[in-house]
Amino acid sequence: MVDVGAKDITVRTATARAFVAMSSAVLTALPNNPKGDPLEVARIAGISAAKKTSDLIPLCHQIPLTHVELQFRTQQDGVEITATAATVARTGVEMEALTAASIAALTIYDMTKALDKGIEIRHVQLVEKTGGKSGTYRRHSSESRKTRDAPDRGPEDRK
Amino acid sequence: MVDVGAKDITVRTATARAFVAMSSAVLTALPNNPKGDPLEVARIAGISAAKKTSDLIPLCHQIPLTHVELQFRTQQDGVEITATAATVARTGVEMEALTAASIAALTIYDMTKALDKGIEIRHVQLVEKTGGKSGTYRRHSSESRKTRDAPDRGPEDRK
Amino acid sequence: MVDVGAKDITVRTATARAFVAMSSAVLTALPNNPKGDPLEVARIAGISAAKKTSDLIPLCHQIPLTHVELQFRTQQDGVEITATAATVARTGVEMEALTAASIAALTIYDMTKALDKGIEIRHVQLVEKTGGKSGTYRRHSSESRKTRDAPDRGPEDRK
Amino acid sequence: MVDVGAKDITVRTATARAFVAMSSAVLTALPNNPKGDPLEVARIAGISAAKKTSDLIPLCHQIPLTHVELQFRTQQDGVEITATAATVARTGVEMEALTAASIAALTIYDMTKALDKGIEIRHVQLVEKTGGKSGTYRRHSSESRKTRDAPDRGPEDRK
Amino acid sequence: MVDVGAKDITVRTATARAFVAMSSAVLTALPNNPKGDPLEVARIAGISAAKKTSDLIPLCHQIPLTHVELQFRTQQDGVEITATAATVARTGVEMEALTAASIAALTIYDMTKALDKGIEIRHVQLVEKTGGKSGTYRRHSSESRKTRDAPDRGPEDRK
Amino acid sequence: MVDVGAKDITVRTATARAFVAMSSAVLTALPNNPKGDPLEVARIAGISAAKKTSDLIPLCHQIPLTHVELQFRTQQDGVEITATAATVARTGVEMEALTAASIAALTIYDMTKALDKGIEIRHVQLVEKTGGKSGTYRRHSSESRKTRDAPDRGPEDRK
Repeated sequence: MVDVGAKDITVRTATARAFVAMSSAVLTALPNNPKGDPLEVARIAGISAAKKTSDLIPLCHQIPLTHVELQFRTQQDGVEITATAATVARTGVEMEALTAASIAALTIYDMTKALDKGIEIRHVQLVEKTGGKSGTYRRHSSESRKTRDAPDRGPEDRK
Repeated sequence: MVDVGAKDITVRTATARAFVAMSSAVLTALPNNPKGDPLEVARIAGISAAKKTSDLIPLCHQIPLTHVELQFRTQQDGVEITATAATVARTGVEMEALTAASIAALTIYDMTKALDKGIEIRHVQLVEKTGGKSGTYRRHSSESRKTRDAPDRGPEDRK
Repeated sequence: MVDVGAKDITVRTATARAFVAMSSAVLTALPNNPKGDPLEVARIAGISAAKKTSDLIPLCHQIPLTHVELQFRTQQDGVEITATAATVARTGVEMEALTAASIAALTIYDMTKALDKGIEIRHVQLVEKTGGKSGTYRRHSSESRKTRDAPDRGPEDRK
Repeated sequence: MVDVGAKDITVRTATARAFVAMSSAVLTALPNNPKGDPLEVARIAGISAAKKTSDLIPLCHQIPLTHVELQFRTQQDGVEITATAATVARTGVEMEALTAASIAALTIYDMTKALDKGIEIRHVQLVEKTGGKSGTYRRHSSESRKTRDAPDRGPEDRK
Repeated sequence: MVDVGAKDITVRTATARAFVAMSSAVLTALPNNPKGDPLEVARIAGISAAKKTSDLIPLCHQIPLTHVELQFRTQQDGVEITATAATVARTGVEMEALTAASIAALTIYDMTKALDKGIEIRHVQLVEKTGGKSGTYRRHSSESRKTRDAPDRGPEDRK
Repeated sequence: MVDVGAKDITVRTATARAFVAMSSAVLTALPNNPKGDPLEVARIAGISAAKKTSDLIPLCHQIPLTHVELQFRTQQDGVEITATAATVARTGVEMEALTAASIAALTIYDMTKALDKGIEIRHVQLVEKTGGKSGTYRRHSSESRKTRDAPDRGPEDRK
């Protein structure tokens, strides 16, 4: 585990994204899931997972998060998850945001897999980070657009 | 958490896959990572995560796994992770295999993010499951081919 | 930790209850909590806690639960939580049901404490257990009525 | 999880209480428990649980505690548990104190349930908190007295 | 993680030992530790650790223990810890017994380190295992004697 | 858990050591272990365990580590593990370094036990600590030499 003892304590944030691709039939059935609202369960799972990041990713430092938030946007071909994490610490929270988004995505999979085992999690990516010595990172807008416009999810995926 | 008390105890297996897309420069640098071999650290992280699945996914049952295995295949544009889990239990291990693959992928991200924050995790998907009342599921070969041939990772992704 | 190796593997269930006493103002505000629906978050917290029982209660055995369920009944002076756990194992799940009810109650407290720090958790109790050598236990109806009629929560508690 | 990044780092303490109501026969048998001293096991369980609060209560922040202490007072009709937690952090430790008291109470239940399954945990409540923007909170003495004088645990409870 | 799916479910036990070497001054002070009885705290820590073995040792299977027990024997030059674990499962519990003994030893260290940082944990070893395909293993009596007679803890250790 | 709220936040480090005694046959077979490289798996296990110390040792404070590192030195009669931990906190990290060394040692045991169940973990000890009110501690060189020269591991151990 890298030595971060000499790093400055600064405000650090990170935003990550994941996309759960599913058929429109599964999407339509989301609010009627007999096990509970998949997006609300996924929100709780994502927040809890963010706090466990250093227990899951072997070389991650233990970082007390000051904030975690997950948002879900239902799109035509799936659910886009955006997770934001923040801290005031010696190292960044990219892994916390990515872990929150990933586990939230897996939770949606778990709650809908009875309907369709072909659901796929795509585009788990860091969207932005701020703070620390390396400063701000923002994913290229062309890359962002790929997710929004989904050029790499062709028509064969939507049927 | 769904009642599985009346289900049969049978051998159940599941295989999941994830793809960590990265530039060839990052791929080439993988074996020289100062923090350790990313694929070996990811393998351990994936196995450990499989055992924590019920702690991460709120409605997952606690399943004692009889076997977990991760394999890594370095390709031209990234690393393909295949995770297999098995049990002799009342419910399946799809989530265990998917969690192992996802956390292994996040671990590779963690160990290479200093080189490139644009790395993306793609195609987290169930490849196969066996056992239980619903029997065997195999992802359509056309879908499998998508991952192998990567038709949805166009040239714009590789640059 | 008591040796249960010679005990029979049988179906075992347990139902526990907890009551979160709060003012009608706090009760009315429950559905509008800015942090999410307290009862849904409590439900997830209770299920997750049931699975962690052997990690929380030092001498509890590790029991793979086949079922966990929480129900919430809003009453005039608070929220009644009923948690049910089940397994097919060598020892009972009373502690799992009680832990689920207790952590769900604490979660409701956590989500409403900004409104009223005087909220109190009462009557954490085992309502019923079945299975195992000692067979079925059912709390006396007079004791049950106490919770329903709340004779020990006088008028001074309700104001 | 609420954003506490802008809050001041101050000393924060909290004291919580729980009451484990049991018959005098069970109380008398406490020191002779074959599994160990229930109060000592409960003390360890409470301290350990305080450190796991953010893993149990979904929206709780991770707070490094500077101090946890549990005290047990055997009374005529049960055991009163008082748990104190302290930190130097951006948010309070009410949930840590309440979790410590609750899990200690459940541990006593676990160690005595072979004698009496009717044992009940009552009056899990915050007694005091200090520090932070909202300053000091102290439970009304009338409410405190209720616990001390036990007016709401009538004779019918003791029989 | 090795595939144990085809192994037989049998009763399996394991006994492990650890020795915490300390000066007689520290030994004499053990019962008066202001933080609690070190041996009782170590007993609870050892039992809890046994249940976490598969979370600590990466390639260990998750094994529901039917029994865990720790015994402490105060000797002239330290405390001998004996930990026994049992299960009815597809693989053995050697690591569970060894983990229990090791964490109990570390707990004793933690509670006495204020008096003497030179305390040393020695002879963490498997004493016996039963069950499974490989059957019974018993450490050679000559090796056992080494611990009892402590021939490898020379006079220089005792001063 | 001792109150450390009034202690100074300073840089604190600790180095601990453990020795895994094994026959030269087992030592020679180490790099060819079918389950993976035991020393690399042990390194990851040790780092992960250091982060869990407060969950394993009941009265340990939760300390966010700024650094953990493990080194392995293969000797004639076994593997010497050196674990270093660091923090900037109110209390020391001796237990974190000792826990890392112990769990790394147990992991090596786990991965080689199929070859030899007689492997023994010895000399788990604190080598050095710095920082805090009590300042620097260094194990006596005579004691250190014991480990290096291994006078207490006689020829009878090597056979």
